[in-house]
Amino acid sequence: MKKLRVIKIGGQIIDDKTNLPFFLESFSRLPDQKILVHGGGKIATSFLERLRIKSELIDGRRITDSKTLEVVQMVYAGLINKNIIACLQKYHCRALGLSGADLDMIRAVKRQAGVIDYGFAGDVISVNMTMISKLLDLNIVPVFCSLSHDGQGQMLNTNADTIATELAIALSETHAVDLIFCFEKSGVLKDKGDDKTLIATITPDSYRRLRNKKVIDAGMIPKIDNAFSALEKGVKNIYITHFLKLPAFSVENGASGTRVTR
Amino acid sequence: MKKLRVIKIGGQIIDDKTNLPFFLESFSRLPDQKILVHGGGKIATSFLERLRIKSELIDGRRITDSKTLEVVQMVYAGLINKNIIACLQKYHCRALGLSGADLDMIRAVKRQAGVIDYGFAGDVISVNMTMISKLLDLNIVPVFCSLSHDGQGQMLNTNADTIATELAIALSETHAVDLIFCFEKSGVLKDKGDDKTLIATITPDSYRRLRNKKVIDAGMIPKIDNAFSALEKGVKNIYITHFLKLPAFSVENGASGTRVTR
Repeated sequence: MKKLRVIKIGGQIIDDKTNLPFFLESFSRLPDQKILVHGGGKIATSFLERLRIKSELIDGRRITDSKTLEVVQMVYAGLINKNIIACLQKYHCRALGLSGADLDMIRAVKRQAGVIDYGFAGDVISVNMTMISKLLDLNIVPVFCSLSHDGQGQMLNTNADTIATELAIALSETHAVDLIFCFEKSGVLKDKGDDKTLIATITPDSYRRLRNKKVIDAGMIPKIDNAFSALEKGVKNIYITHFLKLPAFSVENGASGTRVTR
Repeated sequence: MKKLRVIKIGGQIIDDKTNLPFFLESFSRLPDQKILVHGGGKIATSFLERLRIKSELIDGRRITDSKTLEVVQMVYAGLINKNIIACLQKYHCRALGLSGADLDMIRAVKRQAGVIDYGFAGDVISVNMTMISKLLDLNIVPVFCSLSHDGQGQMLNTNADTIATELAIALSETHAVDLIFCFEKSGVLKDKGDDKTLIATITPDSYRRLRNKKVIDAGMIPKIDNAFSALEKGVKNIYITHFLKLPAFSVENGASGTRVTR
């Protein structure tokens, strides 16, 4: 099986004009097939404010009405995605920016309104594995923003962690996939204020203990729940790490940060 | 040589929520290989106003400072391109949205500041023909927005007519290319207010006469000058037509509107 890395960047990296190019250079040097996934919520929030569009976040998930969707679409697929692509070209990386609508890559269903109506939020139903494999075989590096579509002409907003996880799961059928979440901390920390308190490995047992002791908090719980689910569905390795630690992954068996393992 | 149609849409179609899907359905039904190119200046102008960013147009060309570029990039590559792609997926067209930075498709050089400083405006220097051909051979339909890049990490704003023309010229090396400009009139008109006064054919001789009589005005002159130049550089046929007339082009030798010919 060919090795494939699915790398998600989020948080403060995207907004960091000094470190983003550094990260992208490391990314461009990674061997093997690779996919990048990015969010961009903070920049979207700033444009929503400038356009005086009211937008609500519930547990980190955005309520996406049609005006909000326009802005999210512009910021994710237009501003951030193309800046990343232009930068990767500088590093001679054959990068191709994609939303879930392009080549019908990620199809989703609009989330049913329950107690909360999330608006144009999409829950992933399928990934176009065949097409992604064809692109990877042309040495193309797909760069996904966090947008899907419903197959009926409607774009949908989908969480970037979810996009990365769904891609990793789908491609595990044909590839040995490592899923790497990069953010501005060195991994999952015992003390959130101290980067030296890194938890090197999280297993189902240690996860239970860490949750009981409330060492792992609400923001990290869905990430780790998803990680265990992805491992069960065939993803080989999952890491949560600092974005400046990416070069370590270019070395055989090199890794850094927190490893989530069964 | 394989037949390829490069179709540019502009003007009021992009903003026309009723007719745009109709146009895209016709486009999706065209036989042979095809490429779509779109602008979106009017929607960009509207967002620039809402964001209170001052932006100037000189002879239809936008002065693109860094704040303007952000908005142009968001509107072209994010909002318009992804709405078009999502709609084309509905019609089972294997559409892929591209800026000139994606896969290093269209490289440009920032226009030197002369009497006018156009800012982040790009003049095309190369088209990645090899990569476009590979995509076309996978039955992929590229949909280009009017953005290029400089190969050094900088996105650049480039006129959509120019993008379409440069793609048509570059691909004429390997394909029999028809270049079709679609807009909201039936073609080049003797009387701009009367769609029945269509000029069916423009040759270099008739063009000279029409210019002398001032039947063809300032807005159309660069389009037709470019068209003659493209014919000289190998493009097979060039048409200027109404966007609702596109279905005619799906019939063998079917065409409609004004044909520019040598």
